[in-house]
Amino acid sequence: MSAPAHLSLITLGVADVARATAFYESLGWQRAEPSEPTITFLRLGTPGGGWVVLGLFGADDLAADAHQAPPAASPALPASFRGVTLASNQPSRDEVDRVVAAFVAAGATIVKVPEAVVWGGYSGYVADPDGHLWEIAHNPFSPDWAAPGS
Amino acid sequence: MSAPAHLSLITLGVADVARATAFYESLGWQRAEPSEPTITFLRLGTPGGGWVVLGLFGADDLAADAHQAPPAASPALPASFRGVTLASNQPSRDEVDRVVAAFVAAGATIVKVPEAVVWGGYSGYVADPDGHLWEIAHNPFSPDWAAPGS
Repeated sequence: MSAPAHLSLITLGVADVARATAFYESLGWQRAEPSEPTITFLRLGTPGGGWVVLGLFGADDLAADAHQAPPAASPALPASFRGVTLASNQPSRDEVDRVVAAFVAAGATIVKVPEAVVWGGYSGYVADPDGHLWEIAHNPFSPDWAAPGS
Repeated sequence: MSAPAHLSLITLGVADVARATAFYESLGWQRAEPSEPTITFLRLGTPGGGWVVLGLFGADDLAADAHQAPPAASPALPASFRGVTLASNQPSRDEVDRVVAAFVAAGATIVKVPEAVVWGGYSGYVADPDGHLWEIAHNPFSPDWAAPGS
């Protein structure tokens, strides 16, 4: 049986929706409909001119929606590695450095200073205020992954 | 300082790259360049005709790449809620049921049988063989979130 290879939405569980929203808005990211106080939707461009939605939703609410046991820890998100990373590719190494600095200025924590990596690119990691990991990278071999949409 | 609101890649940490790849390929998802034995890239369509890459990479390797402490638990991924979900919207409730069945037939675990949800849609959750959560949903209010790309 087949399933469409399609992604509509990524939802990040957060401790405080307003705080998480302020963080991403301070990067210049735009809120989309139908955002409301309990959930924020942001639009992210994707290669080829499409987009996906990034949802910011209370971690407890997200766990409940997925019928998961409520996170035992406070503030409701695993402190350990979560097994998932999001990546935003950039058109140059300089732009990687600039975008990492923008995340940090907005309140992110740097977890890996950008460096040349074994696959031939250049990559750093930041954690958003809820600990979600973003890789900011330049990949000289896959130019169509590297064109920011906005 | 601004950062482009752009998503290139989502990487899932997995216990066994070959097993995870076989799971997603059995759904009919296509492997993309530059896949190699240690990492698989799949293309997912996004609304508006774009695409993102879904990477399947050893959880320990992914943690190391992000300078995270290696997961303490075996099989290397948190057993608890990870704070992130991916969602694939479908054009109808019937299609939600069909896609959930396809995931289960491929080896996913059902974690929430599709049901009518408070926001007016219809949604279920499955976990892939590594425990990553996919929401399969129909959203009658956001038709442009609901058009599978392939």
